[in-house]
Amino acid sequence: MNAPESFDAAVPAGKIMLVGIGPGSVEHMTARARSAIAEADVVVGYVTYIKLVADLLDGKEVVRKGMTEELDRAVSALDAARAGRKVALISSGDAGVYGMAGPTYEVLFQAGWTPEGDVAVEIVPGASALNSCAALVGAPLTHDFCAISLSDLLTPWPVIARRLDAVAMADFVVALYNPKSGRRTRQIVEAQRLFLRHRRADTPVAIVKSAYRRRQNVVFTTLAQMAEQDIGMLSTVLIGNSSTFVRDGLMVTPRGYANKYDMDEGGATRDGEKAGRSLSTGLNGWLEALQIDHAAGESVEQLAARHRLPIDYIRATLDEPLEAAAADLPEESEA
Amino acid sequence: MNAPESFDAAVPAGKIMLVGIGPGSVEHMTARARSAIAEADVVVGYVTYIKLVADLLDGKEVVRKGMTEELDRAVSALDAARAGRKVALISSGDAGVYGMAGPTYEVLFQAGWTPEGDVAVEIVPGASALNSCAALVGAPLTHDFCAISLSDLLTPWPVIARRLDAVAMADFVVALYNPKSGRRTRQIVEAQRLFLRHRRADTPVAIVKSAYRRRQNVVFTTLAQMAEQDIGMLSTVLIGNSSTFVRDGLMVTPRGYANKYDMDEGGATRDGEKAGRSLSTGLNGWLEALQIDHAAGESVEQLAARHRLPIDYIRATLDEPLEAAAADLPEESEA
Repeated sequence: MNAPESFDAAVPAGKIMLVGIGPGSVEHMTARARSAIAEADVVVGYVTYIKLVADLLDGKEVVRKGMTEELDRAVSALDAARAGRKVALISSGDAGVYGMAGPTYEVLFQAGWTPEGDVAVEIVPGASALNSCAALVGAPLTHDFCAISLSDLLTPWPVIARRLDAVAMADFVVALYNPKSGRRTRQIVEAQRLFLRHRRADTPVAIVKSAYRRRQNVVFTTLAQMAEQDIGMLSTVLIGNSSTFVRDGLMVTPRGYANKYDMDEGGATRDGEKAGRSLSTGLNGWLEALQIDHAAGESVEQLAARHRLPIDYIRATLDEPLEAAAADLPEESEA
Repeated sequence: MNAPESFDAAVPAGKIMLVGIGPGSVEHMTARARSAIAEADVVVGYVTYIKLVADLLDGKEVVRKGMTEELDRAVSALDAARAGRKVALISSGDAGVYGMAGPTYEVLFQAGWTPEGDVAVEIVPGASALNSCAALVGAPLTHDFCAISLSDLLTPWPVIARRLDAVAMADFVVALYNPKSGRRTRQIVEAQRLFLRHRRADTPVAIVKSAYRRRQNVVFTTLAQMAEQDIGMLSTVLIGNSSTFVRDGLMVTPRGYANKYDMDEGGATRDGEKAGRSLSTGLNGWLEALQIDHAAGESVEQLAARHRLPIDYIRATLDEPLEAAAADLPEESEA
C-alpha cells in the first residue's frame, strides 16, 4: 500500500485519512479518529468541523474550506499527500455517508491515482447522524431503515421523489438528511406529501438538531405537522414506520417480538412459533403456504395481489422446489 | 432523571448504558463507549462481544448470554439497575441498529419503567456494520442507502420481500444484515431474484466478513453471483446502485457531481447549472417544467408515467403554485 512508484528516499509516502468524527463531541470520536488526526501533518475540512477538533490541531497545517468546495478539499488533500505529507480530511458523522469518501475517490481516480501508488488512503468509520440522533430520541431505527438526502443540488427531484414514495410504501423507518435550507424549503413539504400517501398522519417524527453539540435540540412531532417545524441544515429528521410509537418522551420502533412472543403473558412463544427459528410466516412457511394456496386454486395473479408482490416473482418462487428444512442446526440470534 | 420514587440513601440510582462498541476492535470504539464500560459494575452481552472488550472487564461482574436471549439480557440489566447498579449492555456496531436498544426499551416499558424513575438509560452511539464494512471496501454508500435484515425470525417474509423490491426499484445502495445462516439459506437467493428484476446482473456487490477483526475478509462479486458466495452470520452484504463501480479493488458510488460538473473539463459547471444551487432538474426546475409540459398538453397520467411517480402526487403538485426563487440566500454544501 505504501510502495512508491520510484524509490526516492527524500520523499516519504504520503497518506490521506478520511476521518469520520461522529456527531461532533470529542467523547464520541473513536480512538482511531483521534490518532489519525494526531498523525496528520495537514488537517483539511469544513470550518465547523475543524472547530470541533481544535484541541488536536497544535503544530499542524490547517486548511479551512468553505461550504461548496468538496472537490477542492479533495484536490488539496491529494496535492499535499503527493508531496509526501499525511493529510486528515475530516467529515462529521461517517465519511462514507454523504461525506467526503465518495467525492475524494472520484477526484483521486480522475487524477490517475491507484492504490498501488505512493499515496495510501484510509477511511476511518464513525457514527453517522442517523445513529447519533437515534441514540438521543430512544430506539427509532431498530428495524429496516433508509437514509435519503433531500438535497437536489446533485440529484434530480424525480429520483428523490421515487425513493421517498418507495420507502414510505414499504414501511421503512426513514432518516432525512439535508432536509431543508434557506433555499430549499419545499422539498420537505413534498416529502411529507409523499409519505402521507402511505403513512398515518400521526406517525411519530423526531427532529434532532446539533446532536451532542452545544445547541442540541430534539422535537417530537407527527408526519402531518412535520413540514411546519423548525428545520435547518443542522437537523436530521427521523420518520417512524407503521409500528413506531412514542412513550414517555421516547420514540421506539419495536423489533417484532410481539409477532412471536406473547408479551403480556411472560414472553411465551405464540402457537406455532419457536424461539431461534423463522416465523411461521417466514420464508419457508410462506413458500409452503404459497404452494398450498396455489394448489387449492388461487391464481398467480391473485396471490401476487394478496401479498402485494410482483406477479413474475410469485411465479418464479412457485416454480422452485422447496428444500427440506435443516433440522440439526444451531439456533440463531433474533436481534 | 435519577430521582428515586422513594428516597432511600442506601440504594443509589441505577443506570443502564446501551453501548455500541463499533466493529469490534478497541481502536474503533468511542471514548464514551470505553468510559461507559469502565463506569459499569455489571457488563452484559453476547459472548463474542464480551470477548472483544475483555481488557476492560477487571473487577466487574460479567454476564455472558447466549444467542437467542435478547429479552433475557434486557431483563437482567433492569434487575441489576433496579438494585442500584450501573449496567453496560453491549452491542456490536450501533446499539440502535438491529441491536439491543429497541428490545431493551420494549422490556423496560413492559416492566413499568419510566424515564422519571430510578433507573437512568443512556444509549452510546457507535459505527454500525454498514459504516465499518463500507470503510473497508471504498465508498459504496455515498448516496441514499438502506439497511434490510434478511432474518425472518421476527418478520414475515412478504414484508421483507416488498422492502427488497421497493429499494431495488428506487435505486438505493442496500446493506443486507443477517444475510444467511445455517438454517436461512434461501433468503439471499430470493433477495438476488428480486434485485435482478431491477438491477443489472453485473451490479457490484461486496461481501465483508468480520470487519476490523482477526478473520476479516472482503470479497467483490456481482449481483448475479451474489447468492453463490461464502456468506455467513458475520457477513454484511453491500449491493451497489445503478451508478456504483469497482475500480482498482475499490467499490465507489458517485455522489452525482457528474450531473452538474463536467468532470473531464476541469470541473466546470455544465450549461444551466450553478454551484451551490439546486440542479436544473431539482425540485424548482422540475416543478416549472411540469407546469409547462402540462400547459402544452401532456396529461396528468402521461406526466405520471413519464416520471414514474404516482398520478395523485403529480396532480397535487400541479395544483400548488410555485414560490418565487429566493435570490439573496447563501449557497449550501453539495456534500
